[in-house]
Amino acid sequence: MNWINEPIKKPCLASLEKAKAQQSLLTKPAGSLGYLEELATRVASLQACQKPSLDNAHITIFAADHGIANEGVSAFPQTVTKAMVANFASGGAAVSVLAKTHNASLETINVGVVDCSTAGVLHQPVANGTASFAQQAAMTPEQLTHALSVGKQAIERIPQADVFIGGEMGIGNTTSASALACAILGSPAEQLVGAGTGVNQQGINKKQQLIEKALELHKPHLNSPLSVLQHLGGFEISALVAAYLRCGQLGIPVIIDGFISTVAALIAVRIHPSLNDWFFYGHQSEELGHQYVLNALNARPILNLAMRLGEGSGAVTALPILRAACELHNNMATFEEAGISA
Amino acid sequence: MNWINEPIKKPCLASLEKAKAQQSLLTKPAGSLGYLEELATRVASLQACQKPSLDNAHITIFAADHGIANEGVSAFPQTVTKAMVANFASGGAAVSVLAKTHNASLETINVGVVDCSTAGVLHQPVANGTASFAQQAAMTPEQLTHALSVGKQAIERIPQADVFIGGEMGIGNTTSASALACAILGSPAEQLVGAGTGVNQQGINKKQQLIEKALELHKPHLNSPLSVLQHLGGFEISALVAAYLRCGQLGIPVIIDGFISTVAALIAVRIHPSLNDWFFYGHQSEELGHQYVLNALNARPILNLAMRLGEGSGAVTALPILRAACELHNNMATFEEAGISA
Repeated sequence: MNWINEPIKKPCLASLEKAKAQQSLLTKPAGSLGYLEELATRVASLQACQKPSLDNAHITIFAADHGIANEGVSAFPQTVTKAMVANFASGGAAVSVLAKTHNASLETINVGVVDCSTAGVLHQPVANGTASFAQQAAMTPEQLTHALSVGKQAIERIPQADVFIGGEMGIGNTTSASALACAILGSPAEQLVGAGTGVNQQGINKKQQLIEKALELHKPHLNSPLSVLQHLGGFEISALVAAYLRCGQLGIPVIIDGFISTVAALIAVRIHPSLNDWFFYGHQSEELGHQYVLNALNARPILNLAMRLGEGSGAVTALPILRAACELHNNMATFEEAGISA
Repeated sequence: MNWINEPIKKPCLASLEKAKAQQSLLTKPAGSLGYLEELATRVASLQACQKPSLDNAHITIFAADHGIANEGVSAFPQTVTKAMVANFASGGAAVSVLAKTHNASLETINVGVVDCSTAGVLHQPVANGTASFAQQAAMTPEQLTHALSVGKQAIERIPQADVFIGGEMGIGNTTSASALACAILGSPAEQLVGAGTGVNQQGINKKQQLIEKALELHKPHLNSPLSVLQHLGGFEISALVAAYLRCGQLGIPVIIDGFISTVAALIAVRIHPSLNDWFFYGHQSEELGHQYVLNALNARPILNLAMRLGEGSGAVTALPILRAACELHNNMATFEEAGISA
């Protein structure tokens, strides 16, 4: 676990300043490309270059099951996790279609899906799902270490990637993410607990009560981001946290997806605050707690399309916007080239 | 001008219902793709098909000059219109870069740019710019008819297009569009007049006063959308209005761009209210009056990136979102195909 303490790479401020100067030369009224200008100059600073590019996008979906799902917190049974893993692999899931549409490579990793041996998936299961955090710690310290290493290795296998998108799949993981956010932010469950994949108000109330009880049960251990993760998290959320950290250490920009991914980002940022420099936030999801967690991260989402699917789908949907920002930055004429006095 | 009275094509309600039923079968929680689901089902209903597709996108930029520019309402001199036309043609403008990035064809039409004979541009000038609407009608009835026919013909030349994006260029045209919106909506200038390409507060005040005076001057003639257009409009805005109308008559979906394009859309919709069925709104721009005009059209913009460039740039930036919505609709597995009980 010593790798977690390795420093986060620093963005290149000189490249940022050069990119801002370049933007001021392009044939448009100053600032008229709005947020696209900031996106391009940030990518330039992260890549320490004058021609930012996000051609080699890589998506990793981490999938795992959750003991908490057996407490009836989801609109879908736990077996759906395994079925969706097969759907990612065969190309039928939303994120699979988006990956193909936007020319991104996609890997699916089983970090602990119950009874899953689907072909076309990397199997590195920590266990047959987590324990229910309503009863005990979701995982042992050894299991957390294992899950983190899965995420770290996923990033180390993609040295060619110039942008990383993490997706997650796991029935029950909105409940786990909500509990994590409550513990990290010190917020009451009612502020953060939403409908997930589609439970009704009764289901939401049940989730809130379960989470409040669990926060009480684990209170003595909720004193560090990693201990919070061990007690309330999932294997796939832990792998995401590690993947994000490794991206910042190796210098790979990240597009964060929706609520669950943003909670993983929050935990990673609480471990290394400067990691937030490496994050773009793909979208504002419909899940109740997302805006709240985004605010805690001072994040400005690129899209707001009322999505709430997970899988990395919102982040991949934002990818062409980031790419277009880079293309504009690299290829627009300057006023001088166009013979216009600015 | 009789063509303007031809009816707007009706979207196919049966295709809409089939598309909604198809969405409910796809491997995702109901509604979890948010606005993307509505975009896909709407394209299906406009194309009267089960596999909506926006592969053949076409952009036409209409450029023209404005007599009102000589009253000092813009941050740029009128000669910039001509220079930007050359920049569109040579590929250096934002919209040129976006067209290439998103694989859309691009045509630039000179509808009345002062002293412009740039190669690679279709020259169909109505006149050497409009008259200043602060002094007299911006154009004669014959000039309006000419400008409208340019827009109509632009659409008739692209029978292969499955989506149209109109762009505009013309120094001073934010002032013209603001005056048009005030006249159509019966709103005071202070509600609608913003900074355009970047004038300061003094410049905004001047624009407001000019517009209020012009509204008073032309009051007896502001009694129909086309008469409003003739007295306060520009050649490029008139061509946009006609292009939008022709798209609805021929059945080509449209992505509307920012403030000026949305004002053109408003005029076209006031001529044929059902035309709004054919419009997607690409983005919410930073220009003060845009939100106001969008509200009048009951429009929900796809993006909100604080852009305020025009040229069609915001609409082209939204194109990959619409395309992704179609790809998801067409290519995601159903629950049955994935072996999941929904």
